[in-house]
Amino acid sequence: MNENGVVEAPSVGYVVDVPQHYRLVRKDARREHSIVRLRGGASFGGDELAICAGPCSVESEQQIDAVARAVAAAGANVLRGGAYKPRTSPYSFQGLGADALKMLRDAADVYGLAVVTEVLDPRDVELVASYAEMLQIGTRNMHNVPLLREAGRSRVPVLLKRGRAATIEEWLSAAEYVMLEGNADVVLCERGVRSFDTATRNVLDLAAVPLLRELTHLPAIVDPSHATGMARLVPPMALASIAAGADGFLVEVHPEPARALCDGMQSLDIDQFTAMMSRVGSVATAAGRRMPWRSNVVRGVTAS
Amino acid sequence: MNENGVVEAPSVGYVVDVPQHYRLVRKDARREHSIVRLRGGASFGGDELAICAGPCSVESEQQIDAVARAVAAAGANVLRGGAYKPRTSPYSFQGLGADALKMLRDAADVYGLAVVTEVLDPRDVELVASYAEMLQIGTRNMHNVPLLREAGRSRVPVLLKRGRAATIEEWLSAAEYVMLEGNADVVLCERGVRSFDTATRNVLDLAAVPLLRELTHLPAIVDPSHATGMARLVPPMALASIAAGADGFLVEVHPEPARALCDGMQSLDIDQFTAMMSRVGSVATAAGRRMPWRSNVVRGVTAS
Amino acid sequence: MNENGVVEAPSVGYVVDVPQHYRLVRKDARREHSIVRLRGGASFGGDELAICAGPCSVESEQQIDAVARAVAAAGANVLRGGAYKPRTSPYSFQGLGADALKMLRDAADVYGLAVVTEVLDPRDVELVASYAEMLQIGTRNMHNVPLLREAGRSRVPVLLKRGRAATIEEWLSAAEYVMLEGNADVVLCERGVRSFDTATRNVLDLAAVPLLRELTHLPAIVDPSHATGMARLVPPMALASIAAGADGFLVEVHPEPARALCDGMQSLDIDQFTAMMSRVGSVATAAGRRMPWRSNVVRGVTAS
Amino acid sequence: MNENGVVEAPSVGYVVDVPQHYRLVRKDARREHSIVRLRGGASFGGDELAICAGPCSVESEQQIDAVARAVAAAGANVLRGGAYKPRTSPYSFQGLGADALKMLRDAADVYGLAVVTEVLDPRDVELVASYAEMLQIGTRNMHNVPLLREAGRSRVPVLLKRGRAATIEEWLSAAEYVMLEGNADVVLCERGVRSFDTATRNVLDLAAVPLLRELTHLPAIVDPSHATGMARLVPPMALASIAAGADGFLVEVHPEPARALCDGMQSLDIDQFTAMMSRVGSVATAAGRRMPWRSNVVRGVTAS
Repeated sequence: MNENGVVEAPSVGYVVDVPQHYRLVRKDARREHSIVRLRGGASFGGDELAICAGPCSVESEQQIDAVARAVAAAGANVLRGGAYKPRTSPYSFQGLGADALKMLRDAADVYGLAVVTEVLDPRDVELVASYAEMLQIGTRNMHNVPLLREAGRSRVPVLLKRGRAATIEEWLSAAEYVMLEGNADVVLCERGVRSFDTATRNVLDLAAVPLLRELTHLPAIVDPSHATGMARLVPPMALASIAAGADGFLVEVHPEPARALCDGMQSLDIDQFTAMMSRVGSVATAAGRRMPWRSNVVRGVTAS
Repeated sequence: MNENGVVEAPSVGYVVDVPQHYRLVRKDARREHSIVRLRGGASFGGDELAICAGPCSVESEQQIDAVARAVAAAGANVLRGGAYKPRTSPYSFQGLGADALKMLRDAADVYGLAVVTEVLDPRDVELVASYAEMLQIGTRNMHNVPLLREAGRSRVPVLLKRGRAATIEEWLSAAEYVMLEGNADVVLCERGVRSFDTATRNVLDLAAVPLLRELTHLPAIVDPSHATGMARLVPPMALASIAAGADGFLVEVHPEPARALCDGMQSLDIDQFTAMMSRVGSVATAAGRRMPWRSNVVRGVTAS
Repeated sequence: MNENGVVEAPSVGYVVDVPQHYRLVRKDARREHSIVRLRGGASFGGDELAICAGPCSVESEQQIDAVARAVAAAGANVLRGGAYKPRTSPYSFQGLGADALKMLRDAADVYGLAVVTEVLDPRDVELVASYAEMLQIGTRNMHNVPLLREAGRSRVPVLLKRGRAATIEEWLSAAEYVMLEGNADVVLCERGVRSFDTATRNVLDLAAVPLLRELTHLPAIVDPSHATGMARLVPPMALASIAAGADGFLVEVHPEPARALCDGMQSLDIDQFTAMMSRVGSVATAAGRRMPWRSNVVRGVTAS
Repeated sequence: MNENGVVEAPSVGYVVDVPQHYRLVRKDARREHSIVRLRGGASFGGDELAICAGPCSVESEQQIDAVARAVAAAGANVLRGGAYKPRTSPYSFQGLGADALKMLRDAADVYGLAVVTEVLDPRDVELVASYAEMLQIGTRNMHNVPLLREAGRSRVPVLLKRGRAATIEEWLSAAEYVMLEGNADVVLCERGVRSFDTATRNVLDLAAVPLLRELTHLPAIVDPSHATGMARLVPPMALASIAAGADGFLVEVHPEPARALCDGMQSLDIDQFTAMMSRVGSVATAAGRRMPWRSNVVRGVTAS
């Protein structure tokens, strides 16, 4: 059997073997679609959308505070931000580590947001889980079994990004590793797959969203920032994600994209994010969804 | 230069090196986005959407009449249907040829629809153009220069599908071949690109829609049927296309998909198409578009 | 059934339908591997290798004469050269057309070589066949059914390049179109497939060579020039092709690559080609093959 | 800039913009190509080839002893075998872990072989390094930065497989992470990249071998077993690898492939491996290489 699950039959033709690569994540393993709830109230998979926004990496207290304030005011309910950055080059900025975790926590608490942040090393899972409501496993680590297992043991909700060349079946198998350790709170995040065309950073496989609804009970969101790599393409693809049935999205927002230490070209600035959010509501309504409730009660804070 | 072949400018944004592969199709070659109008009123690129629907291949007068009646009643304004089919295998159904052209014309005339149909051979361009409002150049022929040139000489509007492994730049270069012959009425159609994941037939590169708006003045629509290959994924991806800013879509509809001579698995049946169309309006409104005007006046005909 | 030939079974799993996309090209359709012989003696598929060399495009009588003399002296037995060029951009050099055909014929006759050249338009098949021993159908036209059929009717041997994103099955189906018209003299040419990595022009799928030997009786050669796009990579990949069991190779050679009107960066100069040829013999011996016989009798001509 | 993201210089050749993703691995960082030597004498990068062979996973003492005996007798100098298996599905065999390490060590010692085996978890690096001459970092972990760093700190030679959708530049950047920790003994292993065609498990990008020689001083070998996924394709691709200039290869060998706990379809049996090895010598000679010296002195042991 090759990795495509194809077994050669004796004579002509193929018989595809469908091994039980995943059981717990299958749609028919549950009566209904799962809703993953974070401490503080954000949820993935119900009527309300989950809107996750924040910088590629946490750079300073001021930076993360400014972003948290603005995205909360515009209606986001989850703050994203990188503390440990998995960079292609060892010479690129690798994140502020534990210091960034504390900054994220503080900023999120001020504005009533939950925190999602990436963990790279199985030895850091416990530390990251002590600061964040949700652990992100990034595209480069989708096949990192020791990390998947530690995240499964942590019992903290996990945001599992699709590997950049992972099939849907491989992605669901990775989710199965987390669930098998006893952690059922897994949210899938489509973030684009690798393609021959370099016009965009990746190709956003948006059809994965309705396909996942056929295959699994787990919620699914979309990351149009990493998918496209270009800020101008993020708002139309965020809207399209909701129209396609996604349970939310995750976008990069930075107060000054031109000065960002990573991924500046794909980050929205605060005005662009706010303008985009003003358009999400009507598409959400057309798709039978609601904006997150907390967007109306940002502790009286408004965007600067 | 990053992994996508894009040169990073000192501060913000991209500088894409654009060799002179195309000039006439560039956005800055016109003051505003083009609107391609078909005889009879359908248009691509204005406020009104173009909604093209019909079977993969024309199989009989009854079949095409039934589809035309139904899609017109549900709000489509262009009838699609294959007369000449470019099949991978020589043993697959190759289309009814000139007979199909006549059937398409007749059915379209009864229900007030325009016709778009594929042409494969430069020697058939004149014949096809005598029956159809729009010539389709399919994904397998995007690089077929003699065909592009004949279509350019015909002066009939051309629907140019993206090659299944064509970059956006190659696709625009193909459009340039048509325009260079004097035919400015070119509409681009994203229909998915080839990927390593066989979970769907192709990967719908929906981000191409907003990206094309940055690069060209030509209108662009989406074909979610060929992109996904699965009927259940067509409605969410048609809605997502409109949310992403597409000028319309093209979908396969068949009265009995299970008996279709080609592409049955990806064809909507008439009820599915009608149900989908009832949802398009609210997304169109959210995207600042209108449904085609003629959908309200189908000569008094209603769907069976 | 999607284009990957996968049919969804009612409940779990897949059953792959193997349609009879090809019959005549299958290995078991013949008792032994086919040998395709050109007028003048070159053959593909026997003990002797076929070595095809020449410029991307014919630019002048002097140019093609210089190349023909040199490649014949170094041991090639087939002269390649483009008369009709399928260029991505309409602003790139499109070839000298019928004039180039005559130049190719004349140069080949002087040095005892056969001619292979590409045909793009079904209306040109007869003309090209009157000048060349072998018609090339290029990567952009592998799915061009009218062209495949005309080439099949011509009865001239056909060199069928793999489409740049074609599966092996699709490629064999294209060969079937040619054979179905009565032309059994088809040689397959692997020339690289499209990939996410732009470090080379394409990815040379060399494992296709032994795989084709399992699937078809047709001979297969390799084009390392288009596969890699870089002259320095051509010799090692030509040697590797022979070690993998290819029936020959096709490479680009130009007297002054820096001044070539197309593909200069992937063309060997005459010294590089001659140096490479001096190394082919020992690998051929290790692979159980012989250099073409005529390499010893180039009418007394030696390379300049 | 062409479609490959390469900037065309005015006349001949390429100017590739090399961002400083890697410095230590660059070809020009050393006067000559590196030779990586393992304890016991096997080396990568010199005149002698490195021939690594063994089962996908260590299954029992008897199994690994039988394979070690046979591959040593046939001329291999490095024993491969999986102790920790990174499987797509949590329900697939995950390896025997530390017990397998001991079995590998014992079998290798009896037949005078070095050991290369994969490590998945940064917490296991020290343990694996205490048993093996070489640590393999597999395709799924090429981007696993904590693991790369631990392997770099270990000072044991590292075999770094290419990620299945990694560009050459990303691969070299991963090698840089290892070298930056002070470990210069890195060998690259091309093992195929992901493609749209499922006819083989991956597409072996053999042109990477000569391209790496232009870019880095590090040695490079090829794994034709994982690249093709089909045992019959392994011998021609192993021969082709040597012809292309590889410093060796790594293949899967199992006494009874049909009963292997993993990857049986791509494993050679002992007779197939021995037959293949009898053909390697003449290609090695043609490529200017020698078989490993120890192949002549397997402590008097001959294959059963």
